Amino acid sequence: MTANKPQNRYDYDVVVIGAGHAGTEAAAAAARVGAKTVLLTTNLDTVGQMSCNPAIGGVAKGQIVREVDALGGLMGEAIDATGIQFRMLNRRKGPAMHSPRAQADKKAYQNFIKFRIENQDNLDLRQEVVEDLITEPIAEGSDRLATQRVVGVQVRGDAAYYARTVILTTGTFLQAIMHTGKSQSAGGRAGEGTTAGLSGALHHLGFTLDRFKTGTPPRLNARTIDYAGLEEQPGDEDPQPFSYLNDAITSPQMACHIAHTNEQVHDLIRANLDRAPMYSGQIDSRGPRYCPSIEDKVVRFADKSSHQLFLEPEGRQNCEVYVNGISTSLPRDVQDAMFRCIPGLEKATIMRYGYAVEYDFSPPTQLWPHLESKAVSGLFFAGQINGTTGYEEAAGQGLLAGLNAARLVAAQTPWVPSRQDAYVGVLVDDLVTSGTDEPYRMFTSRAEYRLLLRQDNADRRLTQQADELGLIDAARRERFQNKRRDIERGNELLKAAKIQPPTGPVVRGDVYLRRPEVTWETLREQVPELGEIGKEAAEQCTIDIKYAGYIDRQQAEVHKQSRHAEKSIPVSFDYDRIGPLRTEAKEKLNRVRPINLGQAKRISGITPADLALVLAHLENHS
Amino acid sequence: MTANKPQNRYDYDVVVIGAGHAGTEAAAAAARVGAKTVLLTTNLDTVGQMSCNPAIGGVAKGQIVREVDALGGLMGEAIDATGIQFRMLNRRKGPAMHSPRAQADKKAYQNFIKFRIENQDNLDLRQEVVEDLITEPIAEGSDRLATQRVVGVQVRGDAAYYARTVILTTGTFLQAIMHTGKSQSAGGRAGEGTTAGLSGALHHLGFTLDRFKTGTPPRLNARTIDYAGLEEQPGDEDPQPFSYLNDAITSPQMACHIAHTNEQVHDLIRANLDRAPMYSGQIDSRGPRYCPSIEDKVVRFADKSSHQLFLEPEGRQNCEVYVNGISTSLPRDVQDAMFRCIPGLEKATIMRYGYAVEYDFSPPTQLWPHLESKAVSGLFFAGQINGTTGYEEAAGQGLLAGLNAARLVAAQTPWVPSRQDAYVGVLVDDLVTSGTDEPYRMFTSRAEYRLLLRQDNADRRLTQQADELGLIDAARRERFQNKRRDIERGNELLKAAKIQPPTGPVVRGDVYLRRPEVTWETLREQVPELGEIGKEAAEQCTIDIKYAGYIDRQQAEVHKQSRHAEKSIPVSFDYDRIGPLRTEAKEKLNRVRPINLGQAKRISGITPADLALVLAHLENHS
Ligand SMILES: Cc1cc2nc3c(=O)[nH]c(=O)nc-3n(C[C@H](O)[C@H](O)[C@H](O)COP(=O)(O)OP(=O)(O)OC[C@H]3O[C@@H](n4cnc5c(N)ncnc54)[C@H](O)[C@@H]3O)c2cc1C
Ligand SMILES: Cc1cc2nc3c(=O)[nH]c(=O)nc-3n(C[C@H](O)[C@H](O)[C@H](O)COP(=O)(O)OP(=O)(O)OC[C@H]3O[C@@H](n4cnc5c(N)ncnc54)[C@H](O)[C@@H]3O)c2cc1C
Repeated sequence: MTANKPQNRYDYDVVVIGAGHAGTEAAAAAARVGAKTVLLTTNLDTVGQMSCNPAIGGVAKGQIVREVDALGGLMGEAIDATGIQFRMLNRRKGPAMHSPRAQADKKAYQNFIKFRIENQDNLDLRQEVVEDLITEPIAEGSDRLATQRVVGVQVRGDAAYYARTVILTTGTFLQAIMHTGKSQSAGGRAGEGTTAGLSGALHHLGFTLDRFKTGTPPRLNARTIDYAGLEEQPGDEDPQPFSYLNDAITSPQMACHIAHTNEQVHDLIRANLDRAPMYSGQIDSRGPRYCPSIEDKVVRFADKSSHQLFLEPEGRQNCEVYVNGISTSLPRDVQDAMFRCIPGLEKATIMRYGYAVEYDFSPPTQLWPHLESKAVSGLFFAGQINGTTGYEEAAGQGLLAGLNAARLVAAQTPWVPSRQDAYVGVLVDDLVTSGTDEPYRMFTSRAEYRLLLRQDNADRRLTQQADELGLIDAARRERFQNKRRDIERGNELLKAAKIQPPTGPVVRGDVYLRRPEVTWETLREQVPELGEIGKEAAEQCTIDIKYAGYIDRQQAEVHKQSRHAEKSIPVSFDYDRIGPLRTEAKEKLNRVRPINLGQAKRISGITPADLALVLAHLENHS
Repeated sequence: MTANKPQNRYDYDVVVIGAGHAGTEAAAAAARVGAKTVLLTTNLDTVGQMSCNPAIGGVAKGQIVREVDALGGLMGEAIDATGIQFRMLNRRKGPAMHSPRAQADKKAYQNFIKFRIENQDNLDLRQEVVEDLITEPIAEGSDRLATQRVVGVQVRGDAAYYARTVILTTGTFLQAIMHTGKSQSAGGRAGEGTTAGLSGALHHLGFTLDRFKTGTPPRLNARTIDYAGLEEQPGDEDPQPFSYLNDAITSPQMACHIAHTNEQVHDLIRANLDRAPMYSGQIDSRGPRYCPSIEDKVVRFADKSSHQLFLEPEGRQNCEVYVNGISTSLPRDVQDAMFRCIPGLEKATIMRYGYAVEYDFSPPTQLWPHLESKAVSGLFFAGQINGTTGYEEAAGQGLLAGLNAARLVAAQTPWVPSRQDAYVGVLVDDLVTSGTDEPYRMFTSRAEYRLLLRQDNADRRLTQQADELGLIDAARRERFQNKRRDIERGNELLKAAKIQPPTGPVVRGDVYLRRPEVTWETLREQVPELGEIGKEAAEQCTIDIKYAGYIDRQQAEVHKQSRHAEKSIPVSFDYDRIGPLRTEAKEKLNRVRPINLGQAKRISGITPADLALVLAHLENHS
């Protein structure tokens, strides 16, 4: 009996705060590698909720989902099980640009994620509101730069969770204010509340916080849309799964539709710009530039007379329609009036109005690449709280933070994929090295080696490492090994095969496959044993061979760059001792504390001369 | 363009506030009969949410669901589509006691209700927080006793909905405070907020508000329960649908399990009673007596050494388990410790802690039987705000309020079923005549004529009237008419049939069927044409014949009672003019304002002598 205990205490290895896209991956990853984990979230009914668009993937984002899956994460399986429309974007471009995207049945997606979390061993999911962080001072230098160590969190209702590591994944909920026209209310998501206490706790611990904003479009009732005149956008005929565990998507696909804004709508918006919180000065924090509101688009692309709107159903048994392309915080009368002018939507009724939300984030240069904070040992940050946007970016960070929190508990060194191994590597390196002055989302252009970081080969890049890290189960291991064996065998068969082309001399199978007009299917007719090779492995053999030239060139580049780049810099390295180093460089290097020369080089404003000085100093003193 | 409008204005016939069980039925009913209706609710993701147990029906409650269905409501079809275990309670008792109950897949249930609402013509579902009521004064006497008329509601964000009628169905959300041990927070449901403004508005309009409380048990994670030693409780082998539209339930059924408390648990509770909000004096409002918390049970049934706990899964793809029987607001350490002592639950982890919630309700004697308030014309109340508890009670009231709001808009007279026609009639009559000093739930014992109010004949009692009221669609009408034809034909066949019993003379089929050992099936062997009669109609013929004696007696009683009972009393009837009437009687009659002598008679403390005086006065002055 604990009747007289002043406070309820629960003990774990890892505490994760917030069960959004970052938090669920973080908690699942920590638990998978064996840490005793608890996931605390305000409301168990919002686990894995999609705050905005009911879709997973997209250009560069789809690649992240494939990586999360290759590392044993949840997102890929969840969207495969609950997707309602699958499309491989950029199909006509080269394989580095192929990007899977799928519309989700929003509620089914949430339920799937929650069910997975509930069934995960080592993991407790509990409804709690976290109000404060519990820390204790540590001797300077005992843990890198930290002067505090997190020991747990305080929750509403006289209780505390103690743990060696805490992962903050509270999304847009810190000091959140929602705006629709001049009306404002507190909350991280319409219909929900905000979290004030944690911002105070972070301030108190010396963290800098900054403000971003994001927005969401109105939702319409499908029953009130006139689909007759709208262009239909069907899914792919051969929908591709996101998860390497799945062979195919067999559930029926739903169509989306496309509508268009027009000058009348744009005039209306222009006439009301002074009532838009972003333009009236009511909001002055920065929003996602590449995901602009309709008022932004009308201002920035003043010459465009029309913008596309994608009408995306939010589920199979759900009339809510997400209007992709018309995110707005204009007052509600303008939102109503806009639709009156759009063909097909003249009679559409709004079920939820669009709004913008302003929230605190923690600039991510305050973190190590493994997402632990520099100031507070054991305190990790992942997801939108780091200034990113997007479910996929959140999931990728969450998985890394969860893994590394568990590794810290087990006294293992952090694991972070490099920029040449994964978009997730690019993501965390960009964040901790350069920070971000607008909500950060992934683009293929952010990756130097995007021919290596394809959506099709994420498993070949990561699953072996995931296995060594303890992140995957036997079923995934076996599937991966079979595929790898198939690829090897495919290559052998191709090399051994003698093919007689329509004209010219006999050539080896692999040589023949290099010809643009030749496909795996062509070859299979001549080399029947190729029929034994699985579809995915065949695709890998084909890409390996057809793009060998480009791939080899990128790999050579990686090799060249990595010679110096991997040279690590000790955490306590004293830049101030390098006399000739420019003051600006010292300041930047002191702030970022790059873990190796490669990261140092990527800090904006650091010159080759600066690097040469650091390198010389490192070599003299080792 | 409405750019310079000071406030956004929307116009409807009926505004419903709150999309719980009352609000969804109210809105759907109003829309079905043709009123232009809007349903406003805080969060579109909680439409039709089950705040507490994931089950529909039960003794007397199941009968209400059947009535709601017979009137074209949503609840029956929703539970049929999403139930995971169906049981007919009291099967071994007479048909008046048979009560259907089903466990729901909680999330699927919600989604079903929302989808139906979204698809309902004449009905808009919108996410809005209602903050105030808009009223205007009317000349006294122009509308019964009202001195105000509702004209609309004010919502958060500079907007108002105008309508001739408004239905309040805000459940437990008015001035709600949740308690777990000594910790308190504002909110009508864990993880959600409260509604303060509306209580103020009601006070302002002269309504009396009072406080009730209710509680909910902790939810456990199924993965952490040891089911091996627990008793399994399967569903029925022939699950019966709730809706008269469905022939059968074909979805697979899930099992529940039974665990037991013990002396160790009871000792623990007793030792911590001073920390239970109800016993420490922290809560002093009344809770549901028949649905007591575990601390209540331990105190009130001190001699019982064990209580049953039903472990009810909350869904098919959901590990949350509702522990029916252990509702509690004890502090969380006691909740944790209780389970440690219960065989099978020793290692169970709590996902959500139990809590109690205190909230404002509006004593229902302030309403007319059709649920419009006496003081404010056009303002209706339904559901938990009227001091009731239970989804079914809420749904029944909601349907009546929605229908009558729409009828008021169309200048039609109210429609309310009588006590001999429906449990719903008993419900509203009890509420408006006697009020309630604890959360009101339905029992079969509340009905005088429960052999008439069976779960099997709700359609025969109500669907014809529902059709005349415009509440049902063609499919339901046709199904009902076919069934009625079948019943008639069955009766004719039985009367025409000559049966030779094993011993004795030849008898008519209906006479033979009266024998206890004879069933419809026995007869069908001898009268092959009976095979053409549908299953439900056959059941009705059988019950009509076997229970004819009892049924006739109750009907005669109804007849006898209704002679004077139906004598209506004008709204403006002046009791003070009846010189000899006792002061207490005057006070009570003035407060309740019974619509007829029957209702007057049911007011507690009104004597036959009082009634005789009223009757005499009525007859003298008409
Ligand atoms: C209005 C809006 C519009 C958006 N628009 C876009 C868009 O157009 N494109 C895009 O890519 N992304 C958009 N996003 C961002 C996207 O939703 C997020 O990037 C993503 O959900 C972030 O995931 P997360 O796990 O970091 O946080 P979230 O998914 O927000 O999860 C945070 C979780 O933490 C919980 N929580 C918060 N405080 C506490 C506490 N004190 N205690 C316990 N739990 C707590 C919350 O309940 C929630 O479950 C939008 C977000 C919002 C809110
Ligand atoms: C903790 C708890 C325990 C319970 N235990 C039991 C039990 O053991 N047995 C039992 O039979 N019943 C129980 N109940 C009662 C049962 O849940 C209710 O009787 C039933 O849900 C009432 O239905 P309703 O439609 O009246 O209200 P609700 O289902 O509560 O719906 C009210 C709706 O109104 C909305 N709303 C509130 N304020 C506003 C506003 N200002 N603007 C817009 N929308 C608003 C809410 O969001 C909600 O959707 C319990 C309820 C609670 C909360």
